[in-house]
Amino acid sequence: MDDGGGGSSKRWRFALPNPAVTAASEKSVLRYLLDLHGCLDERGPRPVIPLSHGDPSSAPSFRVAPEVVEAVTSALRSGEFNGYPSPATGLAARRAIAEYLSLDLPYKLSPDDIILTSGGTQAIETVMSVLGQPGLNILLPKPGYPKHEAHAIFHKMEVRHYDLVPERGWEVDLEAVEALADENTVAIVITNPNNPCGSVYTYEHLAKIADTANKLGILVISDEVYGHLVYGSTPFVPMGVFGEVVPVLTIGAISKRWAVPGWRLGWIATCDPKGILKETKVSHSLRSFGMLTTDPATFVEGAIPRIMKNTNDEFFSKTVNLLKETAEICYDEIKEMKCIICPNKPEGSFFLMVKLDVSQLTDISDDVDFCRKLAKEESVMLLPGTALGMENWLRITFATEPPKLKQGLERLKYFCQRHQSQNN
Amino acid sequence: MDDGGGGSSKRWRFALPNPAVTAASEKSVLRYLLDLHGCLDERGPRPVIPLSHGDPSSAPSFRVAPEVVEAVTSALRSGEFNGYPSPATGLAARRAIAEYLSLDLPYKLSPDDIILTSGGTQAIETVMSVLGQPGLNILLPKPGYPKHEAHAIFHKMEVRHYDLVPERGWEVDLEAVEALADENTVAIVITNPNNPCGSVYTYEHLAKIADTANKLGILVISDEVYGHLVYGSTPFVPMGVFGEVVPVLTIGAISKRWAVPGWRLGWIATCDPKGILKETKVSHSLRSFGMLTTDPATFVEGAIPRIMKNTNDEFFSKTVNLLKETAEICYDEIKEMKCIICPNKPEGSFFLMVKLDVSQLTDISDDVDFCRKLAKEESVMLLPGTALGMENWLRITFATEPPKLKQGLERLKYFCQRHQSQNN
Repeated sequence: MDDGGGGSSKRWRFALPNPAVTAASEKSVLRYLLDLHGCLDERGPRPVIPLSHGDPSSAPSFRVAPEVVEAVTSALRSGEFNGYPSPATGLAARRAIAEYLSLDLPYKLSPDDIILTSGGTQAIETVMSVLGQPGLNILLPKPGYPKHEAHAIFHKMEVRHYDLVPERGWEVDLEAVEALADENTVAIVITNPNNPCGSVYTYEHLAKIADTANKLGILVISDEVYGHLVYGSTPFVPMGVFGEVVPVLTIGAISKRWAVPGWRLGWIATCDPKGILKETKVSHSLRSFGMLTTDPATFVEGAIPRIMKNTNDEFFSKTVNLLKETAEICYDEIKEMKCIICPNKPEGSFFLMVKLDVSQLTDISDDVDFCRKLAKEESVMLLPGTALGMENWLRITFATEPPKLKQGLERLKYFCQRHQSQNN
Repeated sequence: MDDGGGGSSKRWRFALPNPAVTAASEKSVLRYLLDLHGCLDERGPRPVIPLSHGDPSSAPSFRVAPEVVEAVTSALRSGEFNGYPSPATGLAARRAIAEYLSLDLPYKLSPDDIILTSGGTQAIETVMSVLGQPGLNILLPKPGYPKHEAHAIFHKMEVRHYDLVPERGWEVDLEAVEALADENTVAIVITNPNNPCGSVYTYEHLAKIADTANKLGILVISDEVYGHLVYGSTPFVPMGVFGEVVPVLTIGAISKRWAVPGWRLGWIATCDPKGILKETKVSHSLRSFGMLTTDPATFVEGAIPRIMKNTNDEFFSKTVNLLKETAEICYDEIKEMKCIICPNKPEGSFFLMVKLDVSQLTDISDDVDFCRKLAKEESVMLLPGTALGMENWLRITFATEPPKLKQGLERLKYFCQRHQSQNN
């Protein structure tokens, strides 16, 4: 240890905080977003158009249904959900979620298959806390959602990236998965519908993922926070459908489908009709960790049975129709831009993943530079692919009002034209 | 590794989840509470009286003030706080908390000194995540709050217990602290007002703790979730008052003072006017961890400025007066029981820590046995001291309606009389 810092000869013994926190936080998307915020011209004449992150809640067209707000308000006003959750409150919420998920499965989940979490983030934290040990490794997609990687790293796992293949609709490169796995591999993470690619996996592809995981003897962690947000030709199939082939931990939340990421209510579902997660103590360990960590707000938990029962189908179809519309706007506009290539039209989630052809541009060194200058010059925010493990790609969010989206894409187009190299 | 479980010869590679989860969860109070729940006679004629945990929210007399519920409801209804917290929302909440805490400090905290957390639990998780490393150790009180220990263990720290001394009003045994600390000690945790002892540390005692920590070069983590809930002769003094002597991380929450533990809004305050936590990168590391982990619900965060500004002083004084009354009821009733000794009248928090004289009782082997039989026979729940590191002690909560408390204590008295040994 060094002298402990503190600006004097005094040796403070806490002067070297856990380096795993720093290593993990380097994977934070928030770092990139804060950097972009810093690039914005605060005194610029035009409003900022953030197409950088998956939060539709500020767009009036995506706003959560009033019956859902009413469910939470009435739980809050009842005074019955101000304390720590009672066993009955927890059970009712877990039962409602088990029933909701079972609608799409060939078997029934029980309330004991559900662990409530403070949003999808805490579901990831919990899964990685339970599985993570030095010497073990985990297979994550590239591009991927950085919090998977951050929490795996924080728990000292080795992260091995498999590719999602743009030429095959961003499917999992299963040959690469087999080549990457060894006897210390514990799990593969998939995200479906996919953030950042906007892809949706077919039944057949999911079946192949299940077979591969079974063969390797590894768990499938299926991040389905964008579940049901699909609007192309591929229906949403939860990975839990293949729970007989391989045990699946499904991560979900009301954040995206209900457009309330700030309400912090998510879950882990053990989709495991053969009881392998029980026998291997993974289920027990997930519940044990749940006892140590923080809970979702009790009144949101208390409102879950009403939210699951009362949300009007029209709300869901309105959201999906709007996403279909904005995905098309986005795809069509991008096609016109010379320096940006979009390999696939999005069919699910809020995102389009596009390749940046830097050679077409002057004054732009890479995707991060592109996004910083775009923020500064046009007050438009996109996420650089580097934040997701893909240099010189960009992630564009289209879960926003169509006029605002069009305006943002227009500014993007001008930006690209202005920086277009004359040699091309 | 063994064959991986799963009821077949199949080897599942995830079959040995992280043993640190199991080790940490053995410190969970919830385990003891669930065990007691299992002992209750569900078909018994009398309602259950839980005097086992610190949650006054179900008692109408302690219910949160209507203006506070209104602040959250209106944030929820506005539709402005459904998404991830904006920088402005976070800043406003952190500023309101910094101003609230600064009222009792000789210097001003800035919004940057505040990290928002999902209740006190996540504040503890964050602090232990940042400080915890194998080879380091931390000093925790005995008796203590088990989540401090659980999260320290989970992050591979060695836990060293110092005694709270009942004969000295449950003060910290500072000689023991000095003897326990070595060059790998990073921090001492204190809880003030104290859970489970009901004690409140004097200015002079806190000054001595600060001097000792300074001498040892260790951080003080001061858990003040019961801050301001004092009703004896000793006023509440935040440890941050001594921030010039030693850097202090203060853990707080609206959970207890506002009687809303289920709302999950807490904080870590860096009370460090000399900037030592900045220089030693502890502040940075706390913020980095905050970017990776889940947040409080945004609409609760959004309501914090109004909650801090609008809560009526009458609400606070009503709560404190009621606690003074119920603490006295509890202390006076306990004095009449031969097998229970109370070393100190509580002056703060919701708790009384009492010694069980098992030699006075027939058929009772220890505190856990006492609590299980009490639950079964009298439908009264107390927390066995074993859960807090003190065998043959009991923790009694008095944050409940006076008539219900009296009834619970009456049943406790009958129970003790019935099990009283005839030899005494």
